[in-house]
Amino acid sequence: MLFFTQCFGAVLDLIHLRFQHYKAKRVFSAAGQLVCVVNPTHSLKYAPTRCAAAQTSVEQGVLPPCHHHEAVHDPQLVPCTCPLFSCPWEGHLEVVVSHLRQTHRINILQGAEIVFLATEMHLPAPTDWIIMHSCLGHQFLLVLRKQEKYEGHPQFFATMMLIGTPTQADNFTYRLELNRNQRRLKWEATPRSVLECVDSVISDGDCLVLNTSLAQLFSDNGSLAIGIAITTSKVHNAEAEM
Amino acid sequence: MLFFTQCFGAVLDLIHLRFQHYKAKRVFSAAGQLVCVVNPTHSLKYAPTRCAAAQTSVEQGVLPPCHHHEAVHDPQLVPCTCPLFSCPWEGHLEVVVSHLRQTHRINILQGAEIVFLATEMHLPAPTDWIIMHSCLGHQFLLVLRKQEKYEGHPQFFATMMLIGTPTQADNFTYRLELNRNQRRLKWEATPRSVLECVDSVISDGDCLVLNTSLAQLFSDNGSLAIGIAITTSKVHNAEAEM
Repeated sequence: MLFFTQCFGAVLDLIHLRFQHYKAKRVFSAAGQLVCVVNPTHSLKYAPTRCAAAQTSVEQGVLPPCHHHEAVHDPQLVPCTCPLFSCPWEGHLEVVVSHLRQTHRINILQGAEIVFLATEMHLPAPTDWIIMHSCLGHQFLLVLRKQEKYEGHPQFFATMMLIGTPTQADNFTYRLELNRNQRRLKWEATPRSVLECVDSVISDGDCLVLNTSLAQLFSDNGSLAIGIAITTSKVHNAEAEM
Repeated sequence: MLFFTQCFGAVLDLIHLRFQHYKAKRVFSAAGQLVCVVNPTHSLKYAPTRCAAAQTSVEQGVLPPCHHHEAVHDPQLVPCTCPLFSCPWEGHLEVVVSHLRQTHRINILQGAEIVFLATEMHLPAPTDWIIMHSCLGHQFLLVLRKQEKYEGHPQFFATMMLIGTPTQADNFTYRLELNRNQRRLKWEATPRSVLECVDSVISDGDCLVLNTSLAQLFSDNGSLAIGIAITTSKVHNAEAEM
């Protein structure tokens, strides 16, 4: 299946696709929220050829090892931060976003509060749902991953990472919220920098973790809606940057 | 180890035990919250003799089967709702609380918002931390359980149950909140009635679920502080009852 992320960056009331509207409305009643329908990447078969090196290990359920910043010769350059592929690209932090958009076809959505609607949650692990989120003058990478840390027991891991330095990341707080059927689950934390590896964040379990049973309780017709909000945690620092 | 639950039903500012004060203060800064230190029950060796029937199955990691209301001859009588023991007691719903206090030595705490401080989180599964909570004219049973649903991978499950009927339970919303080190995790749901079995709630995963890694992130020196709040979800019904 092709890696394909489809975004609707439009206000809910203007969306004419009744299906999406219905789904989003059931979960989030607040008008004016953006809904982003994110399809899964459950196979890397059709990934660009240069990323094929990671394919075998990912298919075996072993994620490619992280690129470490220390390994980069020019300290100004950072490796590709795409969690899907072991990509040999490296470049300045400022151009990571355009690399992710152009090479890895990861879409970007604007807005302080959005709804991330992950479809086909039933697909087997390993599967990723990925989107970039532009907000408060910065770009964030949202990763939802279905992974079998323990064989036969897939779990869902959701985290948000700043496409920026750890110092910049400390200025923000992100919130992930699930809300359905008189149940609500909220996770709030400081985002990590993409210079840290998303795989480490997930293996450390320092993110929103859902069992399959909880994910099913919050899902609707196989789709999971995650409300996302980003705020500045240190007002003075954020202002200084702006 | 004896089943022993020790409660401090006193305002934080009045507590002279510096250790508890320090711990609670780090997690919840709001003054005037009650802190209840709950010790684990990780062995049923010293359980009352009449509950010994459940001992073997619990030691094998298999919890005793639920008592079902249908099995009771007098429909007005309910079985013992203690999650720890397979107890042959049955009685009217109104006297369940006194049975739990007197026979199973489960303590009761008053207050709309309390902090449940579970100690010795490192103890092996199966382990339970249990307290009753009196609030808004009703009594609730709070259960934190460490259990290996998947062998070798213990998880923590926390839920709140009303010592009342399912119809009464629908009138309330409970919130469990973990807050430490710039991370926050909140679970909100309608409590289940104790007439439903706590084991089913946990096996369904319809509760706050924590991996060992997340539990460690929120723990401080082996203790996990859970902020608890109960509110009425249907104001008119609650008023009618009062």
